[in-house]
Amino acid sequence: MTELRTLKVALLGCGNVGAQVARILIDDADTLASRTGARLELSGIAVRNLEARRDVELPHELFTNDAEALVKDADLVIELMGGIEPARSLILTAIRHGASVVTGNKALLAQDGPTLYEEADKAGVQLSYEAAVAGAIPILRPIRDSLSGDRITRVLGIVNGTTNFILDQMDTTGAQFADALAEAQRLGYAEADPTADVEGLDAAAKAAILASLSFHTRFALEDVYCEGISSVTAADIAAAKDAGFVIKLLAIAEKLTDPEGNEGVSVRVHPTLLPREHPLAAVHGAFNAVFIEAENAGELMFYGQGAGGTPTASAVLGDLVSAARRIVLGGPGRTETTTGHVPALPIDAAITSYYIGLDVADQPGVLARIAQLFAEHGVSIEIMRQTIHRDSASKSESAELRIVTHRASEAALAATVEAVKGLDVINSVTSVLRVEGV
Amino acid sequence: MTELRTLKVALLGCGNVGAQVARILIDDADTLASRTGARLELSGIAVRNLEARRDVELPHELFTNDAEALVKDADLVIELMGGIEPARSLILTAIRHGASVVTGNKALLAQDGPTLYEEADKAGVQLSYEAAVAGAIPILRPIRDSLSGDRITRVLGIVNGTTNFILDQMDTTGAQFADALAEAQRLGYAEADPTADVEGLDAAAKAAILASLSFHTRFALEDVYCEGISSVTAADIAAAKDAGFVIKLLAIAEKLTDPEGNEGVSVRVHPTLLPREHPLAAVHGAFNAVFIEAENAGELMFYGQGAGGTPTASAVLGDLVSAARRIVLGGPGRTETTTGHVPALPIDAAITSYYIGLDVADQPGVLARIAQLFAEHGVSIEIMRQTIHRDSASKSESAELRIVTHRASEAALAATVEAVKGLDVINSVTSVLRVEGV
Repeated sequence: MTELRTLKVALLGCGNVGAQVARILIDDADTLASRTGARLELSGIAVRNLEARRDVELPHELFTNDAEALVKDADLVIELMGGIEPARSLILTAIRHGASVVTGNKALLAQDGPTLYEEADKAGVQLSYEAAVAGAIPILRPIRDSLSGDRITRVLGIVNGTTNFILDQMDTTGAQFADALAEAQRLGYAEADPTADVEGLDAAAKAAILASLSFHTRFALEDVYCEGISSVTAADIAAAKDAGFVIKLLAIAEKLTDPEGNEGVSVRVHPTLLPREHPLAAVHGAFNAVFIEAENAGELMFYGQGAGGTPTASAVLGDLVSAARRIVLGGPGRTETTTGHVPALPIDAAITSYYIGLDVADQPGVLARIAQLFAEHGVSIEIMRQTIHRDSASKSESAELRIVTHRASEAALAATVEAVKGLDVINSVTSVLRVEGV
Repeated sequence: MTELRTLKVALLGCGNVGAQVARILIDDADTLASRTGARLELSGIAVRNLEARRDVELPHELFTNDAEALVKDADLVIELMGGIEPARSLILTAIRHGASVVTGNKALLAQDGPTLYEEADKAGVQLSYEAAVAGAIPILRPIRDSLSGDRITRVLGIVNGTTNFILDQMDTTGAQFADALAEAQRLGYAEADPTADVEGLDAAAKAAILASLSFHTRFALEDVYCEGISSVTAADIAAAKDAGFVIKLLAIAEKLTDPEGNEGVSVRVHPTLLPREHPLAAVHGAFNAVFIEAENAGELMFYGQGAGGTPTASAVLGDLVSAARRIVLGGPGRTETTTGHVPALPIDAAITSYYIGLDVADQPGVLARIAQLFAEHGVSIEIMRQTIHRDSASKSESAELRIVTHRASEAALAATVEAVKGLDVINSVTSVLRVEGV
């Protein structure tokens, strides 16, 4: 090989993903050089604890405590520490010293992305973060570049593997949430403290990033309505299954016009019913997928592994090689376009279909009264299905009513459910779940 | 909006896709300008017949016969004429005049891509062709950029909507090939002369492009082994279904080591059995999808519309905006990396599993003799299943034998099938089909 210039790569953090990135940088150095047109030299790995055990054996002399010094001497910086500080300060230091940055830090991007993008723009360096959403799946670059001549209208993403594994287990085995969670923890798909995953916070950060890129407007974590899966019951799953649906935790970003005629984007994370024929319904286990609807392209789906050290390392290295190629070629890096100023809509303005489960008294006229009440609130019913349960011991009868509505606003639905609760013939509202893809 | 510079866009060809590209350039001019940082002005549309009727109403004054003059005056050229000449000469003229080129011309790229890439590289302009493979699906850019730090080991693509529609019809309704083709023609999914689609030629050109990008080596159309679907029968589909498989026409490119230990890439198009659980099995109708296996990323799939004027226009415009942004930013465009020199392997070196259907005499010892013969040829049997058919009228019995092998070389399999045919207990070999995804 002819003489190639060398670019210094600083790695911050050496966890699951970081260790694999370091391994690949060392093992595949020749291949990466031929792809890049420059040698990518791992100049050091900044960690908190020099003595910690790593997943991968790496040269001792690469490790350092002095992240700051490492960053100041690098052409490219890979940030995989996670958390807000010191990641944020180190990224800003890197940018101000003229280094391009690759990060997988979704929490930081969702909280303070705009500052980072602006700084990178000013410095003429690149800031890439493919690994922050849906692990190995190339999704951010296709949205940013491949769909740059189109208008995205809706994004539906399964972007959290832990919750997809749990819901898939519940769907396949009929398990309750707690048991499926325990199984996920046993297999290493869920952490000891699973809150960030099961309450949808991880998905919400990714939703903010997806929405920002898709609608060319900055959305932050606080713009995202978030509901997790901890209250989804085996009965919900069974009822959904019975009606031809599967329940998935979706990150949703869609352009809507609210009842007052204001255009905006609804960004939200919640358990969602999907028809079993929907491409996202076939995403099993801990896999991720992002489904995109665009005005011209129509329906697109991107599917792959959403987590794991090696898959996520692939996304990090794709960003790294791309950024390095740009340095080799010369000319400024591509930056974000955020020309839009579409407001984030509150959850009340979201428009979707709903599935409602009701435990009702089995007496004549109940269906008619409930249907009347929906009509009064402007919520149109698509499917209404009643099942009678007879308890031969107590000789009592009860009826279960399942309703799927047409698309209605969240506000109208909430008012309807409140009113339904007030009816004397209602024993309980057993579930209210949103439906997409119908 | 502040004053933006204007980039002149020449459009060559105004068919199905071209007309939609022109419409979007005119209708969405402001959005495209905000994404690009420059106004994209459609300076003219070169067509053969000025009087031809178009799908879309477009300003008369844009049309011209003089493609050459149009190209010489453009900053960006979109070539959607198809065919080899004059498309090839016009693209070369554009490149030599410093224009970046966007094309969807898979036939030209598969035949003479290397010349075009080299010329673009020399001139420092960009040559993009996302629309050439799988229509609206962003697949070439993810392979080139997002997976640039990974090593792709295998690509399996449903890249021809016509054949996928026909096979899906046969699978769903039990129709014979001829009837499913007629239905596809009636619905506009197949042309009056369907040869290029059903014989796999269209898929073969796309396979060459996918293989070239995935393995960083140039592969041309003549490197691709190609078998179409016209000999796939309703009986094949039914037998596959019965065994838990679906038949798809796949474009396959995979790294293999042949029996002599030589590394190479097998590039081929043929009807293929896939397990019904495989993500590609769920790709219905005229949809396309590309399934990629990479060393680090693992399994990825990209799904969407593979044809149609508007979806394909989305891919063209994504390329156009990206190329235009690079002009605005300054610095040379990204070019291809083709550092590898992996040879294309002949079909004999391909290693895959096979499904073999046999009509055999129903007499003792037949299974054992056949199994023995497979073993002698080094082809290991995974599943062997015998079904006895009794004809009560003639009181005769016949047996149907279905065999799925483990992975074996094409050469070993061909020799085995030849030998099996020579057995006196064999009435006929009813089908030999390749299997992937097991």
